[in-house]
Amino acid sequence: MSVFEEVQHGFSMPLSEAMETQRAVRRLKQDPVDDETLLAILRLATKAPTGGNAQGWEFIAVRDPDVKHAIARLNRMSWSLARRMYAKKVNGDQKAARMLEAVQWQADHLEDSPVIIVACLHGRGFLTPMARSSFYGSIYPAVQNLLLAARSIGLGAALTTLPLWSQTLARRTLNLPRGITPVAVIPLGWPVRGGYGPNTRKPLEEVLHLDHYGNRVFLEA
Amino acid sequence: MSVFEEVQHGFSMPLSEAMETQRAVRRLKQDPVDDETLLAILRLATKAPTGGNAQGWEFIAVRDPDVKHAIARLNRMSWSLARRMYAKKVNGDQKAARMLEAVQWQADHLEDSPVIIVACLHGRGFLTPMARSSFYGSIYPAVQNLLLAARSIGLGAALTTLPLWSQTLARRTLNLPRGITPVAVIPLGWPVRGGYGPNTRKPLEEVLHLDHYGNRVFLEA
Repeated sequence: MSVFEEVQHGFSMPLSEAMETQRAVRRLKQDPVDDETLLAILRLATKAPTGGNAQGWEFIAVRDPDVKHAIARLNRMSWSLARRMYAKKVNGDQKAARMLEAVQWQADHLEDSPVIIVACLHGRGFLTPMARSSFYGSIYPAVQNLLLAARSIGLGAALTTLPLWSQTLARRTLNLPRGITPVAVIPLGWPVRGGYGPNTRKPLEEVLHLDHYGNRVFLEA
Repeated sequence: MSVFEEVQHGFSMPLSEAMETQRAVRRLKQDPVDDETLLAILRLATKAPTGGNAQGWEFIAVRDPDVKHAIARLNRMSWSLARRMYAKKVNGDQKAARMLEAVQWQADHLEDSPVIIVACLHGRGFLTPMARSSFYGSIYPAVQNLLLAARSIGLGAALTTLPLWSQTLARRTLNLPRGITPVAVIPLGWPVRGGYGPNTRKPLEEVLHLDHYGNRVFLEA
């Protein structure tokens, strides 16, 4: 099997396994990610639904070192502020501390990611709450497909919006027309260490309500 | 095998197959969807990533006929306006015409869905573009997991925001506190007909750019 055939085989991972072992993988090797793999992942991304099936998306796959540096610079500006907020949350929580370390590692190495995907949408998305939700609901399902597809083949990936704190600077970096909004950034690369594994979440019952908010019939006493 | 064991087996559908055959399934039977199935799907939804792993989500599973009627009423108000916009797009396009018919069917029968999920988030999500994206990016990956999980077991599902045109009325309908935003509505039920099947999208190459917007090296001449 060629590397790509092995990769393709990965896409047949059981759906539930991919979801149950999805994690943000931020420590990435510099080893290249080949075009075939990249295209296969993005093709699965574009299988996602969009409002009215409009598919108003554009994906920028960044490999150019200068553009990657510019994105990394934007990310560091944002992170230098966001870090303080995150650091307060840590407060002895080991899991939060590990996340902080990983995001710091990512900030220090973002330009070394073999490829950075920027997912964009036509439009600006700042209308009514309904229109806003429909706007972002027309790109994040694709982003989640991308992340799940990466997970299924063991390719490291994590979602961030930190480099997008200035729409003007982000647009300038990517030559984006004003009518196109950069929405999400996903660095891709093979994990430095194992990377993926079972994730843990709050018990579903804590966030599930029947008929009305507050009606917690699913919550065992 | 019990019905639920069969259902669980479905979650092992290959990831790529689930994505490649995901469709909006709007014509739903009134046959019940059991709690075990519902909980299993929602559990996979909550495996999705959220910004800072905050998991600030709440899911309302609506089975009560009065609440379903109220949601259907809100949906019809919104659809009576949106329909005109959609109708203009049809203009001889058969695929768009079929979608219009299906959304009309859904509007006429929404209260008969065995269960309607309303996905909500803590917060309001109307800050900077970066914060907005991060907000919606903390619920739509879960919504996409929910839709893919439903698809994998053949349970009909489709994403809509139409019933959420008035946050005030949506909050009142679901007893939601002011600090919680209803983001997406997903009616669930067994499909009237086959339901799922291969979906078609624009060729990836039309929406893919290298390094900068407009650099279309992946696009074959």
